[in-house]
Amino acid sequence: MAEASNSDIGGEKHTFKIRRLEISDKRKGYMELLGQLTVTGSVTDEDFDRRFEEISSYGDDHVICVIEDEWTGKIAATGSVMIEKKFLRNCGKVGHIEDVVVDSEFRGKHLGKKVVEFLSDHSRSMGCYKVILDCGVEKKVFYEKCGLTNKGIQMSKYFD
Amino acid sequence: MAEASNSDIGGEKHTFKIRRLEISDKRKGYMELLGQLTVTGSVTDEDFDRRFEEISSYGDDHVICVIEDEWTGKIAATGSVMIEKKFLRNCGKVGHIEDVVVDSEFRGKHLGKKVVEFLSDHSRSMGCYKVILDCGVEKKVFYEKCGLTNKGIQMSKYFD
Repeated sequence: MAEASNSDIGGEKHTFKIRRLEISDKRKGYMELLGQLTVTGSVTDEDFDRRFEEISSYGDDHVICVIEDEWTGKIAATGSVMIEKKFLRNCGKVGHIEDVVVDSEFRGKHLGKKVVEFLSDHSRSMGCYKVILDCGVEKKVFYEKCGLTNKGIQMSKYFD
Repeated sequence: MAEASNSDIGGEKHTFKIRRLEISDKRKGYMELLGQLTVTGSVTDEDFDRRFEEISSYGDDHVICVIEDEWTGKIAATGSVMIEKKFLRNCGKVGHIEDVVVDSEFRGKHLGKKVVEFLSDHSRSMGCYKVILDCGVEKKVFYEKCGLTNKGIQMSKYFD
């Protein structure tokens, strides 16, 4: 568990720790945080545990990072990366960053950047030649500050 | 192995079969086909076999599709999909489509569309709520014909 940063928020000294998701984080507001990004639905403890185990079975190939606010014991930010193994580029690997979100209470503290750096560093250590992610155009400037550049568009198809 | 389509090309009757990648496809021009998409580097038979086994170990969670031209025994088109397991959207899943390419000799035969449909159908059968992919803006019309729509942009960061 590495120290991410310290901040004064509302006169309180917050210490942020960045680490991988733990199964106990479901009681630290992890799903509520994801709810600030999109629909989470009704995930039971059993659903959560099963999905946690499924993702954990991929080891370093699918990592979810969280930043915990040690003052409140709440998850303040998160993001994930999935390592794709390819044949091209000398059997290269690519890190796919997904679901980056910072709790609205903690925005402007560079926690999002720390999450992206954590996931990017992990991808690099796994031998990836690049990391990629999709976002709305309004997030472009944020990701540029994280060292990424715009390259192409995202296409999607939703099933019923 | 499902029949994909039949076409007359240069006066020859071609029969295209769509199926998953097999280890023997390295002798059917699979890497040369990827080379029409981007740099492939120098992948030895041993590298290929190792990467094939790594990807195969993910079972239905990472599928590479190919279309074989039975007339010449060459791989005419390919694409891959990786299934991401999330917590959000009721522990939903997303199919990430990658590395779609059609041999220049066979373009205009709707093989690309068949690859995207195969990967999309697979994702749906795996319980995904959507499929996504990144492409250059010049490919937007092609993917719209495949039923996808533009939603956002891709950001990337290349390591040294």
